[in-house]
Amino acid sequence: MKYLLTMTLLSFSLLTHAGDNEKVAPAPNQIELPKGYQDWAMISSSHRVDNHSLRVILGNDIAVSAARKNKTNPWPEGAILAKMVWKEGELETWNQAIVPEKFVHAEFMIKDSEKYKKTGGWGFARWVGLDQKPYGQDENFVQECFGCHTPVKGNDWVYTIPSKLPMPAK
Amino acid sequence: MKYLLTMTLLSFSLLTHAGDNEKVAPAPNQIELPKGYQDWAMISSSHRVDNHSLRVILGNDIAVSAARKNKTNPWPEGAILAKMVWKEGELETWNQAIVPEKFVHAEFMIKDSEKYKKTGGWGFARWVGLDQKPYGQDENFVQECFGCHTPVKGNDWVYTIPSKLPMPAK
Repeated sequence: MKYLLTMTLLSFSLLTHAGDNEKVAPAPNQIELPKGYQDWAMISSSHRVDNHSLRVILGNDIAVSAARKNKTNPWPEGAILAKMVWKEGELETWNQAIVPEKFVHAEFMIKDSEKYKKTGGWGFARWVGLDQKPYGQDENFVQECFGCHTPVKGNDWVYTIPSKLPMPAK
Repeated sequence: MKYLLTMTLLSFSLLTHAGDNEKVAPAPNQIELPKGYQDWAMISSSHRVDNHSLRVILGNDIAVSAARKNKTNPWPEGAILAKMVWKEGELETWNQAIVPEKFVHAEFMIKDSEKYKKTGGWGFARWVGLDQKPYGQDENFVQECFGCHTPVKGNDWVYTIPSKLPMPAK
């Protein structure tokens, strides 16, 4: 009994430990949190003035390579876009600068035309907060994502326009 | 004569070729453009509403590691911060989103307390536009950089506050 309790507590501790990708629960549609996304290269950024959030869009190697070459309509198979979202705040030392404050969520689009053909060839997933709680009650949550992206169907369902950077093709 | 002309044209072509770090001229203080900075990991972002620009701050491995561990006052020796700056624009498909448009410049702070002790331990440099023209007429341009950073002397001369991310120390 004591052993069982210890194991249960240990499991709970592992499941709720924040910040370690290995132990983050998958999204309700079984998508796993991509590992190491925090260190992916940057594709673009934005400031949404409607909901007062700052965003930086990162990508895995396939996505970044496509972005640098302007080959993003369609994005290639295997591309993953990762959007980091923060509530906007003000820089204390320069109040003309809007800066990221509280971390809101990390959301992902994973390109697999076959696997995700019902949602434009993209798998959607989101993890909320610094403790990365999977978003959505069940797998129908993707309809919300997909619905919001319908206006950009002509841009392969992606809002992000890669930012121009002084660099050769990767 | 024909050979000389060819060589001159070739040299000019090499010097002005945009987008390839190998051929970008150093800053007037002899700082060389850090290689591969475009793919460095993200440290933070901002929207400056005074001059209508969006910024993403990237860092080399030393800087990113320090940022993830909140060990940034002072930043460690060898840290390089790279700030990408774009003019703000509007996303056509979502006009509540301010997005990067024209690339303005990439600017760098390189931590070497000994080498750059006259300017707070930081070497400053900037390359303008997609063709990466070095900023400044002579090496005194750093006084302009350093002057602007004086208000954040207490933050190791750095404005950037690393954005919170759900991740373990690198």
